Amino acid sequence: MSAPVVLIVGAGDYIGAAIAKRFAAGGFTVCMGRRRGDMLKPLIAEIEATGGTAHGYTMDARREDSVQDVFAQVEQDVGPLDLVIFNVGGNVHFSVLDTTERVFRKVWEMATLAGFLSGREAARYMVPRGQGAIFFTGASASLRGNAGYSAFGAGKAGLRSLAQSMAREMGPKNIHVAHLIIDAGVDTAFVRERIQQSGRDPNDLSPDTLMNPASVAEAYWTLYHQTRDGWTFEMDLRPYAESF
Amino acid sequence: MSAPVVLIVGAGDYIGAAIAKRFAAGGFTVCMGRRRGDMLKPLIAEIEATGGTAHGYTMDARREDSVQDVFAQVEQDVGPLDLVIFNVGGNVHFSVLDTTERVFRKVWEMATLAGFLSGREAARYMVPRGQGAIFFTGASASLRGNAGYSAFGAGKAGLRSLAQSMAREMGPKNIHVAHLIIDAGVDTAFVRERIQQSGRDPNDLSPDTLMNPASVAEAYWTLYHQTRDGWTFEMDLRPYAESF
Amino acid sequence: MSAPVVLIVGAGDYIGAAIAKRFAAGGFTVCMGRRRGDMLKPLIAEIEATGGTAHGYTMDARREDSVQDVFAQVEQDVGPLDLVIFNVGGNVHFSVLDTTERVFRKVWEMATLAGFLSGREAARYMVPRGQGAIFFTGASASLRGNAGYSAFGAGKAGLRSLAQSMAREMGPKNIHVAHLIIDAGVDTAFVRERIQQSGRDPNDLSPDTLMNPASVAEAYWTLYHQTRDGWTFEMDLRPYAESF
Amino acid sequence: MSAPVVLIVGAGDYIGAAIAKRFAAGGFTVCMGRRRGDMLKPLIAEIEATGGTAHGYTMDARREDSVQDVFAQVEQDVGPLDLVIFNVGGNVHFSVLDTTERVFRKVWEMATLAGFLSGREAARYMVPRGQGAIFFTGASASLRGNAGYSAFGAGKAGLRSLAQSMAREMGPKNIHVAHLIIDAGVDTAFVRERIQQSGRDPNDLSPDTLMNPASVAEAYWTLYHQTRDGWTFEMDLRPYAESF
Repeated sequence: MSAPVVLIVGAGDYIGAAIAKRFAAGGFTVCMGRRRGDMLKPLIAEIEATGGTAHGYTMDARREDSVQDVFAQVEQDVGPLDLVIFNVGGNVHFSVLDTTERVFRKVWEMATLAGFLSGREAARYMVPRGQGAIFFTGASASLRGNAGYSAFGAGKAGLRSLAQSMAREMGPKNIHVAHLIIDAGVDTAFVRERIQQSGRDPNDLSPDTLMNPASVAEAYWTLYHQTRDGWTFEMDLRPYAESF
Repeated sequence: MSAPVVLIVGAGDYIGAAIAKRFAAGGFTVCMGRRRGDMLKPLIAEIEATGGTAHGYTMDARREDSVQDVFAQVEQDVGPLDLVIFNVGGNVHFSVLDTTERVFRKVWEMATLAGFLSGREAARYMVPRGQGAIFFTGASASLRGNAGYSAFGAGKAGLRSLAQSMAREMGPKNIHVAHLIIDAGVDTAFVRERIQQSGRDPNDLSPDTLMNPASVAEAYWTLYHQTRDGWTFEMDLRPYAESF
Repeated sequence: MSAPVVLIVGAGDYIGAAIAKRFAAGGFTVCMGRRRGDMLKPLIAEIEATGGTAHGYTMDARREDSVQDVFAQVEQDVGPLDLVIFNVGGNVHFSVLDTTERVFRKVWEMATLAGFLSGREAARYMVPRGQGAIFFTGASASLRGNAGYSAFGAGKAGLRSLAQSMAREMGPKNIHVAHLIIDAGVDTAFVRERIQQSGRDPNDLSPDTLMNPASVAEAYWTLYHQTRDGWTFEMDLRPYAESF
Repeated sequence: MSAPVVLIVGAGDYIGAAIAKRFAAGGFTVCMGRRRGDMLKPLIAEIEATGGTAHGYTMDARREDSVQDVFAQVEQDVGPLDLVIFNVGGNVHFSVLDTTERVFRKVWEMATLAGFLSGREAARYMVPRGQGAIFFTGASASLRGNAGYSAFGAGKAGLRSLAQSMAREMGPKNIHVAHLIIDAGVDTAFVRERIQQSGRDPNDLSPDTLMNPASVAEAYWTLYHQTRDGWTFEMDLRPYAESF
């Protein structure tokens, strides 16, 4: 029996990389798409060094042709997709007054449109086979809008609604659609920099108050292994001390 | 004292027209934007025949320049905007498998982007004056995605999130942002046609099981007249017999 | 034609009194239930002085026999109930560790059980007549639990769920069930005292940052006058500057 | 190092039993409370036959003294509680018109009050130790009221709000509070009987359209093993073909 295949759309340095390593360690052949596929080389090397199998693809998740190309390549060269994880971000913070049309559109293309393109493409391959899983990464902003987050909130709310529509349509076709809400700062260089800019030293943070990317990966691992008599559509994740 | 000014973005034949007539009857100068502004002529004539004042504008609510032009014209020629009501639809129904990138994008442009462009433009005029109201028309799909509604649901969920972000940012600036959820079929030619296509005679429907556009207009009238110590952000509307 | 009849369950000095005065001014015969009915005398006198009609009842809204007695008296002596507004509070604040069984139970009896007893009794009179309206007063805590609000939150969430169940069951029977969420401090002696205890002078508050009880009454007046093709189940109310 | 201790409040024949077996297999000492503790004997024997350790207690989860007694016994005789799972049901179905005060109260006592008593008692033991986990079993009715479910919905909504309040209060104290929503029929004798009563043969059901109690147990096992940088407060579970 050949190894199951996962495609991670938006395989960045933190969450995407952690997902890749978790599924590679669990025996998956890991495929990763990223704006600049060459940047995936160190991660692929790291996975291969531990005996895993990984492939990197240059992919603009906002462009239909690019998404379709990468899905087709994976299906043809690697094997039938068992799981697609959509993990593209797009967090920006502006007053609505200062949000340009260009920013509003770009955030939507990253957060919602790209999710639609990957989700639909995954479904098109999986529906005829009658199996598969499609997971989407959400954020606090998926649940409600907030001052300063008109673009990001609208994008993530759109993605969540898409995931709901797809779950309701795809569940009876034996395809597991789930939406994971990361309601916290994840421990990344970007988040640490923002903490520093706010005048605090990120090294002084109490342990476990930022989320470890590996915990996100573990949640996806768990979701994938649910039996179909008890699938989760949505779960949230936040550090123990996070207010909500 | 001059008459208050309302701009209705998306002034169609049913809800938009009903809002226009309600606010004209209440003493507002009514401005209306529509893809084909010439189609507003009968409505303007009807309003003027009853002593009201109305102006029509050709406006593509999805295009920034068109939105900005119409807002500038109204502000210059008619007077400072007291109220903007965003009422553009975009309901389509497709399996996610059959939803084209073009449809998904167009529905978002109508449902979310156009709401952002009108809402931001309204806020830019109102914030310096420290007063105003911006209302958005939502639908059942604003609350959750459903099979067959991946495009429409994502668009309406994005609009609702935008309205939440704007309400939280604009409320303390004395600008009332509200989101009205129409959780029902409204009595329009389009809805009656769909009922007919499903094999029922729309004339056999029990009275009041479709929503009268005038009831939507009345809800907006009520929201506008709330005192600022007790503003509503969100209210739903549905016929008495509607299941939910 | 005789005047319509409203019964206000939980007719306290602020919101309940404001509702009573609003509906009396609008031509209703106003009936009010309160733990100590004799405390209603000044309010009844005030309403009568302005030409209105009001009746007061001693009523323990948590006791089935007391609720049934008052409903029966009103129906027999005053006339068929057109509207019942349930307005009993029960706000307490304790760590869950310090919440006694007695407090948890009492808050539920006030917030949820009393709402059930009044709502069911109203429905029993209204269903055979095929008309009527039953409104419930909610709070911020109706929407989500929060640290320190385990008792109050559970009680208000229970009431909201009851209102949802009743709306879905009673709507098709032509009975309008609605739930009003007051997401703010209302301008009462109790709230002003709490502000003082927190070290601020309530007289220094900006205007309109506490909700006027009359605004709550006006919202109920509006809900009652909706036509049945467009009933609202839920609306929120908060001052313009309130964060949410 | 001694085995971790779990107490299952409401250890019935299906979900409770499955949780007990899962945690026993995973090395926990399993304590179970049930109205009739003697009915736990076969389950205890089954767990012991596979090398596990289990204890049964007679417990009326609705009575404060009974709850406190069992918690004290477990803490003294077995060891400090690591995990408490509240799993008491209370599903009934009546028109609100036919719901007696006794039923409404009893369902609340089972669904909400008992959850409060167990949750608070667990917190009182865990807070001084600075660790522990408290999980609550929810249902579809936790999310919204529905016609015929005024009692059950109000009870489950109250429990969910309690869980939210506790999560927000207990998280920063390093105690993991979670709420699991079982949005489906679980494969029990009771559910099969209801299916039969509705005229269908439960043996004709497609595989995996009822939820296996073991899947609920597995979800709790997963939640318990999350690291505290990424705790889940809420997740839903439903069979793949379930509409929602």
